[in-house]
Amino acid sequence: MKETILRPGIDRRTLLSTLALLPALSAPALFVRASAQTASSGTLPSWNEGSAKQAILDFVRDTTDRASPKFVPPEERIATFDQDGTLWVEHPIYSQMMYCLDRVPVLTAQQPALKEVEPFKTVLSGDRGAIARLSMRDLEKIVLATLAGMTTDEFEVDGKKWLATAKDPRWNRPYTELVYQPMLEVMTYLRANGFKTYIVTGFGQDFVRLYSQQIYGIPPEQVIGSALAVKYDYGKDGNPILISEPKLLLNDNAAGKPEGIHLMIGRRPSASFGNSTGDQQMLEYTGAGNGARLSMLVLHDDAVREYAYGPAQGLPDTKIGAITPALYAEAKQKNWTVISMKNDWNKIFSFE
Amino acid sequence: MKETILRPGIDRRTLLSTLALLPALSAPALFVRASAQTASSGTLPSWNEGSAKQAILDFVRDTTDRASPKFVPPEERIATFDQDGTLWVEHPIYSQMMYCLDRVPVLTAQQPALKEVEPFKTVLSGDRGAIARLSMRDLEKIVLATLAGMTTDEFEVDGKKWLATAKDPRWNRPYTELVYQPMLEVMTYLRANGFKTYIVTGFGQDFVRLYSQQIYGIPPEQVIGSALAVKYDYGKDGNPILISEPKLLLNDNAAGKPEGIHLMIGRRPSASFGNSTGDQQMLEYTGAGNGARLSMLVLHDDAVREYAYGPAQGLPDTKIGAITPALYAEAKQKNWTVISMKNDWNKIFSFE
Repeated sequence: MKETILRPGIDRRTLLSTLALLPALSAPALFVRASAQTASSGTLPSWNEGSAKQAILDFVRDTTDRASPKFVPPEERIATFDQDGTLWVEHPIYSQMMYCLDRVPVLTAQQPALKEVEPFKTVLSGDRGAIARLSMRDLEKIVLATLAGMTTDEFEVDGKKWLATAKDPRWNRPYTELVYQPMLEVMTYLRANGFKTYIVTGFGQDFVRLYSQQIYGIPPEQVIGSALAVKYDYGKDGNPILISEPKLLLNDNAAGKPEGIHLMIGRRPSASFGNSTGDQQMLEYTGAGNGARLSMLVLHDDAVREYAYGPAQGLPDTKIGAITPALYAEAKQKNWTVISMKNDWNKIFSFE
Repeated sequence: MKETILRPGIDRRTLLSTLALLPALSAPALFVRASAQTASSGTLPSWNEGSAKQAILDFVRDTTDRASPKFVPPEERIATFDQDGTLWVEHPIYSQMMYCLDRVPVLTAQQPALKEVEPFKTVLSGDRGAIARLSMRDLEKIVLATLAGMTTDEFEVDGKKWLATAKDPRWNRPYTELVYQPMLEVMTYLRANGFKTYIVTGFGQDFVRLYSQQIYGIPPEQVIGSALAVKYDYGKDGNPILISEPKLLLNDNAAGKPEGIHLMIGRRPSASFGNSTGDQQMLEYTGAGNGARLSMLVLHDDAVREYAYGPAQGLPDTKIGAITPALYAEAKQKNWTVISMKNDWNKIFSFE
């Protein structure tokens, strides 16, 4: 597994130091559906009037008006969304990494010899400082070791169980509630106008598929992400099974995003949404097509309601997956729209 | 590239000997759309009454009747179809292999040194007997060499141009007209009942995506197949490009079919259609799910209207991609339906 599954440009020390802030075990909670299809008065009600909201409205008008030179036939209307930091909270650590850390005790129960082997020994120790000091290579080992060997059916059961009980410590809510209401509204609005909405995530697609329909209204076949190879085999009962192998087949981040889009969709999106350098190439690929284009970057600049991080704002480069000055400059040069969470969104979460 | 991209179980001698029967160059022809959405009186009009037609009708009734214990929610209705030999003619050679052979002069014009290198030298010689004696490894070299290095945009232009001019020698028609009318009716019928139809091909997905919408009514994002890795880069004008690499990323045949289905759909189909051992695992995977299942195999037993081949009929094992006695026995044991082209279809092509 390449480092980029954890997003290139990530600051390892910060990612790891934030681990120390998290509870060692996730507290149980109900798995509550966020309202992807919330009835609303008016279009994009959680968006303040401004250039970001206007860019979305203009784009939909241009692509759906048959009289427009930028009209896009319905079957070609594709919009792609990064997940972590674009559709839901990624700070202080990706929820899927938390899932893998929580799987370590399960793994070592099955393979007791691993209890004395690093990095599993450190994870089991519960020493948050030591866990925070694990190298990126160690974290990758944990991801591969905790996911490989499961059948796809076992993963589905286990992952859903975890999602139903794990909680984000700041909000004390399931991760699946920490979705951005304004982005749900954009997805709903685009779908109402004939767009197929896809998630294109640098993390594992099988994980996102566990909840994409409930949370985002996006079916599993419209989730593209990093993926371990799976191997077809037969179980003890003779029935077919698919087993995850300790081998990264798709690394769906940075350049891997347009590559994955070509592999799994086979055509260029008209609209793409991201929040970091891991989304740069997807936005470039989307933006370089003909006709109306919508390329948007979410800027995390709301320390009160969510988080503020990223060097594009002059904040220290100590956070995960942010906008760099170079990416910010590219956005300006190419007329991409930078969304200010603080200024463009009057509501961030549905539970506010 | 593994041998299986040309379908495991293929008899190399026969495949190659059939090459000798083909014209050295494909004659030009118009690119005519087959009617995927032909209006018909009654359901499945090209199907004779019988157990095969009845199996399809029963399956749709069971999965769409809310009162049925086998009801499947609309969003979970997935049907997958092999292409070559299941949806269109595969005999005497896959049309995509013809495309690659026809690309050899283009390749050697770009890289003249290859003119004196095997297997390209033999292809250029026009000596059909010698071409027919090329090894499987040589054919694989030709596939990789003729496809790699093109951008995805270049491939789209070139492939469509070829499809518009190449003709099948027996019918003197474009390959895209040699689709089985009864299968178009099944796809249309399933879609009318809420099923998402997918092609799952052992050959290249990018090739099938060039015509899947026009021929089958299936959009590119619902075509799964073998795929070369593509690399994101920037062209001379600075715009993003995707270039095919000489590396097989997905081998979507045999066990690769359910693996590819998991990767690109993320859920198990309720119905699958194939015609050879390359479809065995897909049918097993489909058949092992809960609720109503439809697993069908097309038997090529009509030497007059199409072709008759395959050892399951006691014919010599000299043809590509057929049903073996073992697969036939598995079908009987698992209640899969074998479709007799001769007896179950009153019409094979729309142009009859």
